[in-house]
Amino acid sequence: MRFFSDNAAAAHPKVIEAILASNRLDTAYDGDEWSARLDGAFSQLFETEVRAFWVTTGTAANCLALAALCPPYRAVLCHQDAHIEVDEAGAPAFFTGGAKLILLDGPGAKVTPQAIAAACDSIRPDVHQVQPGAVSITNASEYGLVYRAAEVAAIGAVAKERGLALHMDGARFANALATTGESPADVTWRAGVDALSFGFVKNGGLNAEALILFRTELADEIAVRRKRAGHLLSKGRMLAAQILAMLENDLWLDNARAANAAARTLAKAVPDRLLHPVEANELFLRASDEEAANLRAQGADFYEWGPGQIRFVTSWDSDAQAVDRLATALAAL
Amino acid sequence: MRFFSDNAAAAHPKVIEAILASNRLDTAYDGDEWSARLDGAFSQLFETEVRAFWVTTGTAANCLALAALCPPYRAVLCHQDAHIEVDEAGAPAFFTGGAKLILLDGPGAKVTPQAIAAACDSIRPDVHQVQPGAVSITNASEYGLVYRAAEVAAIGAVAKERGLALHMDGARFANALATTGESPADVTWRAGVDALSFGFVKNGGLNAEALILFRTELADEIAVRRKRAGHLLSKGRMLAAQILAMLENDLWLDNARAANAAARTLAKAVPDRLLHPVEANELFLRASDEEAANLRAQGADFYEWGPGQIRFVTSWDSDAQAVDRLATALAAL
Amino acid sequence: MRFFSDNAAAAHPKVIEAILASNRLDTAYDGDEWSARLDGAFSQLFETEVRAFWVTTGTAANCLALAALCPPYRAVLCHQDAHIEVDEAGAPAFFTGGAKLILLDGPGAKVTPQAIAAACDSIRPDVHQVQPGAVSITNASEYGLVYRAAEVAAIGAVAKERGLALHMDGARFANALATTGESPADVTWRAGVDALSFGFVKNGGLNAEALILFRTELADEIAVRRKRAGHLLSKGRMLAAQILAMLENDLWLDNARAANAAARTLAKAVPDRLLHPVEANELFLRASDEEAANLRAQGADFYEWGPGQIRFVTSWDSDAQAVDRLATALAAL
Amino acid sequence: MRFFSDNAAAAHPKVIEAILASNRLDTAYDGDEWSARLDGAFSQLFETEVRAFWVTTGTAANCLALAALCPPYRAVLCHQDAHIEVDEAGAPAFFTGGAKLILLDGPGAKVTPQAIAAACDSIRPDVHQVQPGAVSITNASEYGLVYRAAEVAAIGAVAKERGLALHMDGARFANALATTGESPADVTWRAGVDALSFGFVKNGGLNAEALILFRTELADEIAVRRKRAGHLLSKGRMLAAQILAMLENDLWLDNARAANAAARTLAKAVPDRLLHPVEANELFLRASDEEAANLRAQGADFYEWGPGQIRFVTSWDSDAQAVDRLATALAAL
Repeated sequence: MRFFSDNAAAAHPKVIEAILASNRLDTAYDGDEWSARLDGAFSQLFETEVRAFWVTTGTAANCLALAALCPPYRAVLCHQDAHIEVDEAGAPAFFTGGAKLILLDGPGAKVTPQAIAAACDSIRPDVHQVQPGAVSITNASEYGLVYRAAEVAAIGAVAKERGLALHMDGARFANALATTGESPADVTWRAGVDALSFGFVKNGGLNAEALILFRTELADEIAVRRKRAGHLLSKGRMLAAQILAMLENDLWLDNARAANAAARTLAKAVPDRLLHPVEANELFLRASDEEAANLRAQGADFYEWGPGQIRFVTSWDSDAQAVDRLATALAAL
Repeated sequence: MRFFSDNAAAAHPKVIEAILASNRLDTAYDGDEWSARLDGAFSQLFETEVRAFWVTTGTAANCLALAALCPPYRAVLCHQDAHIEVDEAGAPAFFTGGAKLILLDGPGAKVTPQAIAAACDSIRPDVHQVQPGAVSITNASEYGLVYRAAEVAAIGAVAKERGLALHMDGARFANALATTGESPADVTWRAGVDALSFGFVKNGGLNAEALILFRTELADEIAVRRKRAGHLLSKGRMLAAQILAMLENDLWLDNARAANAAARTLAKAVPDRLLHPVEANELFLRASDEEAANLRAQGADFYEWGPGQIRFVTSWDSDAQAVDRLATALAAL
Repeated sequence: MRFFSDNAAAAHPKVIEAILASNRLDTAYDGDEWSARLDGAFSQLFETEVRAFWVTTGTAANCLALAALCPPYRAVLCHQDAHIEVDEAGAPAFFTGGAKLILLDGPGAKVTPQAIAAACDSIRPDVHQVQPGAVSITNASEYGLVYRAAEVAAIGAVAKERGLALHMDGARFANALATTGESPADVTWRAGVDALSFGFVKNGGLNAEALILFRTELADEIAVRRKRAGHLLSKGRMLAAQILAMLENDLWLDNARAANAAARTLAKAVPDRLLHPVEANELFLRASDEEAANLRAQGADFYEWGPGQIRFVTSWDSDAQAVDRLATALAAL
Repeated sequence: MRFFSDNAAAAHPKVIEAILASNRLDTAYDGDEWSARLDGAFSQLFETEVRAFWVTTGTAANCLALAALCPPYRAVLCHQDAHIEVDEAGAPAFFTGGAKLILLDGPGAKVTPQAIAAACDSIRPDVHQVQPGAVSITNASEYGLVYRAAEVAAIGAVAKERGLALHMDGARFANALATTGESPADVTWRAGVDALSFGFVKNGGLNAEALILFRTELADEIAVRRKRAGHLLSKGRMLAAQILAMLENDLWLDNARAANAAARTLAKAVPDRLLHPVEANELFLRASDEEAANLRAQGADFYEWGPGQIRFVTSWDSDAQAVDRLATALAAL
């Protein structure tokens, strides 16, 4: 019953197959045939011309994007629970050359247009205070909540009005879309998103994430920044191949649907303990130390989120029996 | 007859096996069982306690090391043809926070103790000029030349005398040792090396390099810097597993010996055209445009190094027949 | 009745005299006779060996100190109203290479040992979260409150216990000591302070601040960082001379006493409107828009601090008649 | 007979007068009446709309300009003897966030269009090599040579053709123009210069240099970067006032003419020993150790530039008798 995180799950067999198939001499870096197909594959998925870059971590995708979207002397507005603030070891400052994170509040780790506007209004427009340069939102959020296209569009509108770029951390983008059924285009560029970190590693990939640029004029800069940060792998074909495998026949959506379904099963078992609605593949529950110990004694593995709070994350390969056993254990608390 | 570079070769079957074997749920990042074995495996190889970190590129290994060894306001002395100067997109400045590269001359892209001393002597010891902080050498060098342990020790001595840290870029460390037969310990820490970028990707690995710290007190800082640079992969077990596979039964040395042997075969065919002695797996030849075209017409793939110069790189899986055919073609020039 | 800020006041005649006296050819940078006397003068004042550096702004003093005290991958704990957070345009991130500011709460912009400990405890000790590296406090605080030596010592103790360096932003250090009557040594190094930004510009200086290092082993690094940041003026004697003039016969204390006295006079006129106790040379008052307009109509110049709040700052040269007139106007509100 | 450097000379009486006149309460930072007049004064001088910023050092002026003109992942082309390379402690890397300096050769520390083109041509246009972003030239050069407007225009043309910004380090801009008699406009923006560091400190100023932007759209960024680097002094009026004093009645040109004339007097005494033509206020001479000792014994103060080379720098206030005595001593060598 391992529900600690989705980031340590096995890679999907199709992904492994693709890696094996790409294990032959080709041109190095991103000069290979698989890498060459990325732009086209994502442009088709997003119904517009995009530029796509493989990287090996979400942190790299997020922070390369922010470096291109926000100058060193400005700030990125994000939720105070955002991964870039809480779990990336200061990488945003490293990649941007010192840009500040201005932290917003909001339920479920979601950012609202109002919070963005209020934060901007609280900054004196002079050289003494760091002026905002970009907004970053996470979809699904760090608490497993999902942005609908209309919500993103409202954020995109305030961003545009304030002259701010908009980045989406989509470490669990697939889980979000699996829930809403909305189109990738509607929830991103049509809503004003400039760059998307499109996650695959938590969703059946091995070690390839994609950075998608809707502002294609930033591609040359991103290509250089990726190399400069040591993120241009010489056998990049292996990364491109697994991403292509994930896109083929919508494997990325299938995997996310499976993870989300497992989470819903668990959620139904403990509706009264949920700290947040379960909209993707994460559950946050109230649980006393005793209850947590009880669950652990039954073989459950999870994360202690804070005092009296525990987190379960399901995955594309969450074992059905384990899910049922955990659901039973949760219901019995 | 593809001899363009060793960095695009296929991964060795044992490496692929190891990746497949590690493709199951474990603790994320470097908390897995494979990652946990790295320090021990390298400590045994180097006959002393070391700390080992997987990363996905040589650029990351080199520049993380330099960031820990050289403060932002000092300089790294290296050869003017060093990879960190020529082919890493300014990554040393990015990772160190602006440290300068001071360029040394020397045949075959090798650095001498004399060149280091002379460079240091030419710097006024005041706050106006950037003072040296570290030395970086490449073994095998960018022209395929090898440092013997005694040569490194002489460099280590001058570095110590001048208060400089010493880094070795070992993208082709295996090829160097396969030639000299010296021990990993003798050519590194016993000779004064503080940190080593131990390359596997050009030698049968898929996408794992190792950063070896002989000054183990730097390990905590490196761990943070790796994360901060987006280089802490969540499924790091896949990187650790391939490195362990490379170390097992000295696969790394076997692979390098195969590549070196192929290079020697080619070298024997054109002794008079060699621009540098062939000590590892690279050949640099004089060749006119016509001769280069002639070779290409026969199916040879190689790199035009400069006017009248071409480069061939052999690899652990260089096809024996292709090597013989190329040797014949070279001899016939 | 100009009480907008002390940072725009005239320089004291003794300071001007000193500048004029130093206006002759000498050795450039800090090789002149005045600069040479700084270490000694401050060592005497602080009753221990210190190293002193002139700079032209408090931002430079603060951020050079932080760069030497906190590595780029760690955080500085400070009050959320601290000048380094609110009014230095992100300079801390620029000078440190990306160190984060972790914001503490507390009345009157003062930091407590409890707040520091709580912030440290809330950080998971892993590579994903930015670990603390230093604490910075402001004395007198941004709201004109003063730290007694015992308070600083309590902060110093928790900093030491947590392995954190301690910096004091003393833009109004003179005003603080003029109030407490404590010794410079007691409120700084004896209480655990590693580096002090000793302000003169708000206190009768023209454009010279001093960065005082109690950890003298950092002096070489600071000297280089000062130059590297463009802060090594070629005619530095003019800065050293004005600082020496401020130290002579305790002019710095006399000036601060005058400013503080003026503030006390104003405070006595409006005891019920004070948002904070008046311990230095700043008053923060409740005032409606109407009342503010009323005061402006009478010729008063001040800063609107926020909705319903106004700030007055007195200075070494606050005109006694203007102070009395303003006191009367305040009392009449 | 002090001819060590012009950067330690006294400030001109008019400059001191201006400082004294500005020593009264005004708005802080650059909100005062003197600062407000800078843009207009320089726009008139340059016959076009410019934006002007006071800073306290040439290093700050140079590196703020480069930070706005060259992104962190590109390179600045400059002469290998340029002040930004040799004497600014790595400040260009600090301010730009890691941009590289690519060093050009050329007699008299002057850059040629050919050297720029050749350097650009030698860089592979890929992500592995750092691509050029800007050119920086020094006028007068580090060896006291002067660029004519036509020379700058030729450099400006190649810069434009290659997509590079153009910066001029004018620490001795006045000395250059005093020699050529050309207009400030012709040798700068009309020739393609984007930003100029206009030096005053070596020419009778106390501690104010000006950064002139011909690309006025960069002004907002420079204003923020200046603050962020700790270079926004609160009593900036004192800097603006001295610059205005230097511009009034062309004091800057008069001072430079005086310094240049003194240098010519010295040059005429030793025509055969000159290492470079004397076009501004610097002389570089061949002199044996014995000869140098001989001069020192007679009371001459100068800089040993290298083996067998000595440097004399004249200044706006070089004493006529001292110049004559030195000329005699030089002639007698």
